[in-house]
Amino acid sequence: MKYRRSGRLVDMTNYFLSHPHQQIPLTHFSEAYQSAKSSISEDISIIKEVFESKHIGTISTTAGASGGVTFVPTVARQQTEELIDRLCDRLEEPERLLPGGYLYMMDIIGDPNLMQELGRVFASKFRDASVDAVMTMATKGIPLAYAVAGHLNVPVSIVRAQHRITEGSIVSINYVSGSQKRIQTMSLARRSLKPNSNVLIIDDFMKAGGTIRGMMDLVSEFQSSIAGIGVLTEAVHDEEKLVSDYVSLTKLSEVDLKAKQIKVEQGNIFSLDYSYED
Amino acid sequence: MKYRRSGRLVDMTNYFLSHPHQQIPLTHFSEAYQSAKSSISEDISIIKEVFESKHIGTISTTAGASGGVTFVPTVARQQTEELIDRLCDRLEEPERLLPGGYLYMMDIIGDPNLMQELGRVFASKFRDASVDAVMTMATKGIPLAYAVAGHLNVPVSIVRAQHRITEGSIVSINYVSGSQKRIQTMSLARRSLKPNSNVLIIDDFMKAGGTIRGMMDLVSEFQSSIAGIGVLTEAVHDEEKLVSDYVSLTKLSEVDLKAKQIKVEQGNIFSLDYSYED
Repeated sequence: MKYRRSGRLVDMTNYFLSHPHQQIPLTHFSEAYQSAKSSISEDISIIKEVFESKHIGTISTTAGASGGVTFVPTVARQQTEELIDRLCDRLEEPERLLPGGYLYMMDIIGDPNLMQELGRVFASKFRDASVDAVMTMATKGIPLAYAVAGHLNVPVSIVRAQHRITEGSIVSINYVSGSQKRIQTMSLARRSLKPNSNVLIIDDFMKAGGTIRGMMDLVSEFQSSIAGIGVLTEAVHDEEKLVSDYVSLTKLSEVDLKAKQIKVEQGNIFSLDYSYED
Repeated sequence: MKYRRSGRLVDMTNYFLSHPHQQIPLTHFSEAYQSAKSSISEDISIIKEVFESKHIGTISTTAGASGGVTFVPTVARQQTEELIDRLCDRLEEPERLLPGGYLYMMDIIGDPNLMQELGRVFASKFRDASVDAVMTMATKGIPLAYAVAGHLNVPVSIVRAQHRITEGSIVSINYVSGSQKRIQTMSLARRSLKPNSNVLIIDDFMKAGGTIRGMMDLVSEFQSSIAGIGVLTEAVHDEEKLVSDYVSLTKLSEVDLKAKQIKVEQGNIFSLDYSYED
């Protein structure tokens, strides 16, 4: 179908946004629109300029016969701070407090478009970490893990507490749940993660870090490496955490059941050694 | 920030795509770009034309003071047929066969961008069904449910087999798993679904329909109604299914363990009474 520039810009923008982290040869567009490569290059510069000025992402170009353009989603620091500050405010609502000092979070985890936004923060953070797969533990880590993985264009491996017969052979490990000091089992379908993968672990909550420590051990069982660790909320923990190198978006620093007060602040995402790029 | 038309088209396309089923007042754009409403209206007609000709979606306009424009994602019938035919081919791969006649599906369910595409098919199908929430059963229905809910801009309610203390008060029901004829329990956090919601039930697999029947009963417990039911794969079942009015994308019609043969065909999505719109 032949298109004028305006039509091409709309269609190409949609194509880039739905194909993150995928190298697209220029011929893909020039054939689709029956346009000269020079016109397509101009279109791409316009899109790139808007994407960068609006912090939607970058478009990187690889030269040569096998070259092409790749859309890499990013989030600006200011945008991330606003998003996380809003999230902290929501998490501090006293109605969330449950017996035992737990926080009700399903309204946040149940919001698919919020998960997409938060997933983009991690996808932006780990965009150069050569992530091959995202791993999470069922159930509540799944929505955020899928959002991250979608923006990075990699598959998700779902670790489970129960063995399922519908998943074929599985790999199981025992781990010590850090806060409760109980021995538990987690397992992952053998086919669900390719050996030698570089794995980004994503979860909704971390206290002592036992579950994430378990996932790290499971990653080793698949001859794979850790690309990074990201959690939606970390809780302060009296003893040393079992995991040191992680990125958290929010931090639950105080829960006062009597006074019905919750204190939630920004996680370590802005205070990490490596700079947070725009 | 002031933008020329080309820049506005790129940015507005991104905005529409990330805000499906949300009414946006024209002033949102005219203020953001410091442009006249007439220019914005022209931009929108260009975007609408491309979205419709490329079957990305429609942009509907509501007139009046409280009016605005709404992006509604759609999928063309041909695109849906190609997507589902490819999925059927993948599901027929003999390596999927597990002992007991189960199919390994985690590679498909683990692909976030495939889930997004399939989710758009359901979101397009149920776009006029006034869906307020999507409900699914943990674990394997979650990725598809989130994709559908994201495109419809509604929250997700995750039903679980186990009671969790981190979810506050819950509503539980017993149901009979249709194929195994066992009595089981499912529960949903009281806060996780607003009363009087119109609920779209999404799941990955349906055989006799017992789990979905259970979710329908749970919806009633929340004084809510069923907007529709969608499943990724249905299996043929010798007896009558417990659910009649559902949409399936694929149908597992034959599993021959000895010959290692699986037959998967299109689900009922194209053969339903009501026409499938482009």
